[in-house]
Amino acid sequence: MSRSPGRKQEEHKISRELFVLTYGALVAQLCKDYEKDEDVNACLDRMGYSIGIRLIDDFLARSAVKKCRSYSETADMIAQVAFKMYLGITPSVSCNSPAGNEFSLILDKNPLVDFVEELPAERASLCYCNILCGVIRGALEMVHLAAEVSFLQDRLKGDAVTEIGITFLRKPEDRKHRRN
Amino acid sequence: MSRSPGRKQEEHKISRELFVLTYGALVAQLCKDYEKDEDVNACLDRMGYSIGIRLIDDFLARSAVKKCRSYSETADMIAQVAFKMYLGITPSVSCNSPAGNEFSLILDKNPLVDFVEELPAERASLCYCNILCGVIRGALEMVHLAAEVSFLQDRLKGDAVTEIGITFLRKPEDRKHRRN
Repeated sequence: MSRSPGRKQEEHKISRELFVLTYGALVAQLCKDYEKDEDVNACLDRMGYSIGIRLIDDFLARSAVKKCRSYSETADMIAQVAFKMYLGITPSVSCNSPAGNEFSLILDKNPLVDFVEELPAERASLCYCNILCGVIRGALEMVHLAAEVSFLQDRLKGDAVTEIGITFLRKPEDRKHRRN
Repeated sequence: MSRSPGRKQEEHKISRELFVLTYGALVAQLCKDYEKDEDVNACLDRMGYSIGIRLIDDFLARSAVKKCRSYSETADMIAQVAFKMYLGITPSVSCNSPAGNEFSLILDKNPLVDFVEELPAERASLCYCNILCGVIRGALEMVHLAAEVSFLQDRLKGDAVTEIGITFLRKPEDRKHRRN
């Protein structure tokens, strides 16, 4: 372990196209396996969750980020550090609720669909990238943040942008108490 | 398209862990779908082939490599440019036949198995990374090189290294003729 962190980071960098095409093969396989879009979506979400609970360690080690003090900081971290690291894009973030626990990640472009022209007519309810929701949900759970994560808009379905909604489910009261 | 190629390259770089975990989810799904390891292996190879025939365009555009003049150059290109670009590693290459059409790529480490401890006992014949063979075969076919590609050794199965064998099936006679 004598290598510098920078060198180690660089070694982990790859072009994303093989990943994007492999993900396409995974979705295609699930579409063979399950007749209903809802079942494919649920399966992708479950797979993502399993990935997220493992990926979080890699993320914390590699990003060396500090602990987030608010939902807003957490949402920014997901968009600016995690998406950049694993998908090479930086979604914009907006807060959608006065309570400050609902956020949207807006993806102007989505590399995961780079090779997808459009969803087949019989797959109109497919959330093609639903694995991402599961990944976010799983990773958040591992840092003790329960959240609901789902696609609110999807360019693949004709929406103007792709939008992932994150709703944090519990206030981090324990953290506040600890700081008082 | 006013961005420089360097900038564009950088935008496509990602950390490979999400890919590696997603690939694991794909293999796990196929193991649910198919009872026999041979069927999983064949499916991964087919998927890889479909990916390879699409990935080659990305590879040629992004790498800006010149046309290879020999099987040896082609094998080096796969190891030094393609593996580096899409998996972040550089296998070593050896030629295994006097005819000069059989090569081995030796992977000292294989990031695709980073999160795999060992194959389950009931999956002893699984070629976990078989998608790579399909990708190489598909990509080569698109540059008019027919090849057989398979795992000859696999650390996941207790071998000392992971070794991918590439056997080119036809001499590039047409190319020679054109140059004479």
